[in-house]
Amino acid sequence: MKGRLRMAGGLAVLLAAAGAARGETSLHRDVRLWIGRHEAAVLRELAELLAIPNLASDGPGIRRNAEHIARMLERRGIAARLLDGEGGPPVVYGERRAAGAGRTIVFYAHYDGQPVDPARWTSPPWTPVLRDGPLEAGGREVPLGALGLSPGPDWRLYARSSGDDKAPIVAVLAALDALAAAGRAPSVNLKLFFEGEEEAGSPHLAAVLARNRDLLVADAWLLCDGPVHQTRRPQVYFGARGVIGLEVTAYGAARALHSGHYGNWAPNPAAALAHLLAGLRDPDGRIRVPGFSDDVRPPTAAEREALASVPDVDAALRHELALPASEGGDARLAERILLPALNLRGLAAGAVGEGAANAIPAEARASIDFRLVPDQTPARVRERVEAHLVSLGYAITREAPSIETRRSVPRLVRLEWEAGYPPARADMDSPFARALLAAVDEAAGQPVVRMPTLGGSIPMHLFAETFSVPVVGLPIANHDNNQHAADENIRVQNLRDGVSLFAGVLARLGEEWR
Amino acid sequence: MKGRLRMAGGLAVLLAAAGAARGETSLHRDVRLWIGRHEAAVLRELAELLAIPNLASDGPGIRRNAEHIARMLERRGIAARLLDGEGGPPVVYGERRAAGAGRTIVFYAHYDGQPVDPARWTSPPWTPVLRDGPLEAGGREVPLGALGLSPGPDWRLYARSSGDDKAPIVAVLAALDALAAAGRAPSVNLKLFFEGEEEAGSPHLAAVLARNRDLLVADAWLLCDGPVHQTRRPQVYFGARGVIGLEVTAYGAARALHSGHYGNWAPNPAAALAHLLAGLRDPDGRIRVPGFSDDVRPPTAAEREALASVPDVDAALRHELALPASEGGDARLAERILLPALNLRGLAAGAVGEGAANAIPAEARASIDFRLVPDQTPARVRERVEAHLVSLGYAITREAPSIETRRSVPRLVRLEWEAGYPPARADMDSPFARALLAAVDEAAGQPVVRMPTLGGSIPMHLFAETFSVPVVGLPIANHDNNQHAADENIRVQNLRDGVSLFAGVLARLGEEWR
Repeated sequence: MKGRLRMAGGLAVLLAAAGAARGETSLHRDVRLWIGRHEAAVLRELAELLAIPNLASDGPGIRRNAEHIARMLERRGIAARLLDGEGGPPVVYGERRAAGAGRTIVFYAHYDGQPVDPARWTSPPWTPVLRDGPLEAGGREVPLGALGLSPGPDWRLYARSSGDDKAPIVAVLAALDALAAAGRAPSVNLKLFFEGEEEAGSPHLAAVLARNRDLLVADAWLLCDGPVHQTRRPQVYFGARGVIGLEVTAYGAARALHSGHYGNWAPNPAAALAHLLAGLRDPDGRIRVPGFSDDVRPPTAAEREALASVPDVDAALRHELALPASEGGDARLAERILLPALNLRGLAAGAVGEGAANAIPAEARASIDFRLVPDQTPARVRERVEAHLVSLGYAITREAPSIETRRSVPRLVRLEWEAGYPPARADMDSPFARALLAAVDEAAGQPVVRMPTLGGSIPMHLFAETFSVPVVGLPIANHDNNQHAADENIRVQNLRDGVSLFAGVLARLGEEWR
Repeated sequence: MKGRLRMAGGLAVLLAAAGAARGETSLHRDVRLWIGRHEAAVLRELAELLAIPNLASDGPGIRRNAEHIARMLERRGIAARLLDGEGGPPVVYGERRAAGAGRTIVFYAHYDGQPVDPARWTSPPWTPVLRDGPLEAGGREVPLGALGLSPGPDWRLYARSSGDDKAPIVAVLAALDALAAAGRAPSVNLKLFFEGEEEAGSPHLAAVLARNRDLLVADAWLLCDGPVHQTRRPQVYFGARGVIGLEVTAYGAARALHSGHYGNWAPNPAAALAHLLAGLRDPDGRIRVPGFSDDVRPPTAAEREALASVPDVDAALRHELALPASEGGDARLAERILLPALNLRGLAAGAVGEGAANAIPAEARASIDFRLVPDQTPARVRERVEAHLVSLGYAITREAPSIETRRSVPRLVRLEWEAGYPPARADMDSPFARALLAAVDEAAGQPVVRMPTLGGSIPMHLFAETFSVPVVGLPIANHDNNQHAADENIRVQNLRDGVSLFAGVLARLGEEWR
């Protein structure tokens, strides 16, 4: 019932009330009214893009995404190009110059998505479904085609990459439409850069940037990936953790064995793996690899100050997530993500539940992602983890071992490292940072959250290292978007705020930036 | 080529040579010649039975198995009945009285099979495929319909339950056929008892035995489940380990979380599970649960003597299984199975490999089977494991926890125990044991292996407790039959020897039993 009332109220009325309370500028009023009239079309444009399967490993699918986005740009009169992916998916590139603008920014988002396990999804991952609330709150499907009234703020559009990271692509194009409708020109030259393999670790991005160094010359990069703050307030983030993935395989007998006839004699690789993992991190998440944190740089004064003003959401988050406690004792989430993490993202051996057979598995696998902070590097993390495992008595192989190797080498583990990339952190006090925060605060009608770093990983370091310009993040997705998991969604109010935010930044950034 | 030569030689010639070398009796020569003439028909009868899916949980499928077996009995003039399963699958029962026999034995086998993961099978689990050697040695398919020449000894028939435990059902019926053809009557009254839920832990067997106490009166039970010795010599076993299964679930946040944004703050249930498992057994398989082994009864003099004469296969087995070492240091497999075991049969959380997403799983599961030895009981094992987990600080729940429970109870684990059953061990020195060993040695043409216990679990204790008569095992399947795993198979020579062994026991047991 609550949802219905909210819906009947209509967007414009609600926004007018909100606008009045915060001293809205004429620009933002125009943008807001534009959104009220065009929201159904924006949602449908996003849904069309979400309907195209977008795993970076699915060549034909990912190319269809790129071509679809290029057409979206061309509909706005932006000449679109697919930059050669240097072996990976193409980058969608577009450029809009602004008359009289002295500065240029590159707007980054990615159009590929995380792998999916369709069995866990309520509706199929690439069949976008609008619901009049979150699934956990009983949200019911609303046909997208029949969308007449303005949707309520907590309605959600469900699909893989709805939040991570196709929404910003649609939002920035809608922001350009809204500015044009309001007769306002952007205050900065805009280069659009949409990547297609971020969720696969961006293995070819460095090569693409190097090849297009001249094309991509700019004064700053704005990365529109990641979620807003858990309070639902917008946030600007100045860093991201690095990441490196690791697959670990432990070996038992050459074939699965009857656990009765051989149990207690044939070694169990799942049990061996449990001991290996317990040796990598303690029950509270502390990493047991000697030297692992030696390269961690302490926070700057500006970072510490920003951190102190980040709203405290820990208790509310623990309640929402049904966690009796968080790791690291009393340390807040915002502090914890300034530290590295070792996450066990998967375990697999034999079978559990109904499918469990009384057998000793032949092998057991674990999948890990490490999150790194400045000045850690993937190479040093890899070295230290391997040295630790060797010191614990494990023998490391990188290939699938031959039967002879399995027969002769005790405590054999296979390590398969993903490429990974290092962390990055930008100066929170640069002229660009100050201008961006001013424009964002104005668009949001309130001071936004300033985060020294995002917990997640995006390849900020590559842009920073290649172009030596500030690289800062301005996300729009809701934090509870089920990013990387099943039932990923974008909250309608976040999409709406995102259009408004991007329009404000495009209109005002160049004016503030001295 | 070698396979071809063996095949072209023909079975009868090979068997005549073998028979001559070991002083064959006229009975065993007659049986051997009968097998030579009827082997293709025996294999086809087994393949027909194997083609019927036989999970105990699949009601209609399991019933089709029972009805099919009943028809196999009736074709031999044995009146077959399906005993009510008391809530579980029916038991196939048949009886053949022998003129002048003073003793009665019950012949037990089971017709249900372990769960399957079809993706791991080379050919589908319920599509029986005959191959001219093991798959690992490049065995190629031989159409069953076209089987003209005698198959070589190491040919294999692949299908779920080929070894465990449909082969003995076909073999004992073939043994009766062979005896009849040789004009020999069994020396004991025979009751056939074929169970349909052994792999599901026989939860209704006690009720079936209690309900049919009068029908099943006998002087001994012969259990034809399990494998022969790894030397491929026949074996008689006098005990079995008990078993109890346990599913463990550890909990993280109410939903999977982005490992970047929340990693190092939101607890990881897969890591918690690794620590829990490491706390249950040490890397060498020693069980860390205090008091777990208090009830283990030391072996008798007869058991120790039998153990000393069990052929030493450890080094050869380690080589075959590609194991650099076995658990328990220098202790032999035959000794190790006199001890309890904790086997980790499955692990599951998130995903590994290509499917791995950078997320913190919401829960993690492990599946365990404990193997018990006299005088352990499932109830005491359960109590001690739970007490140990409580002492380590875990909070135990048996149901899927509510969101409120997950929110408020730290270190919550869900334990789901299967029913399980206790171990059993029969007297190796009873008149029945001595008569059986004499008949088996004669049929095998050599002293067979005397095993104090099987490592696996079969519900020997139920027969022993219900009827207070000797319960002894006489298996025929090859040890390398991939029992409980993918590509399960029965070796042709084992099926052949099984028919011969059962014929010999039926003909001679009553004469030796004084």
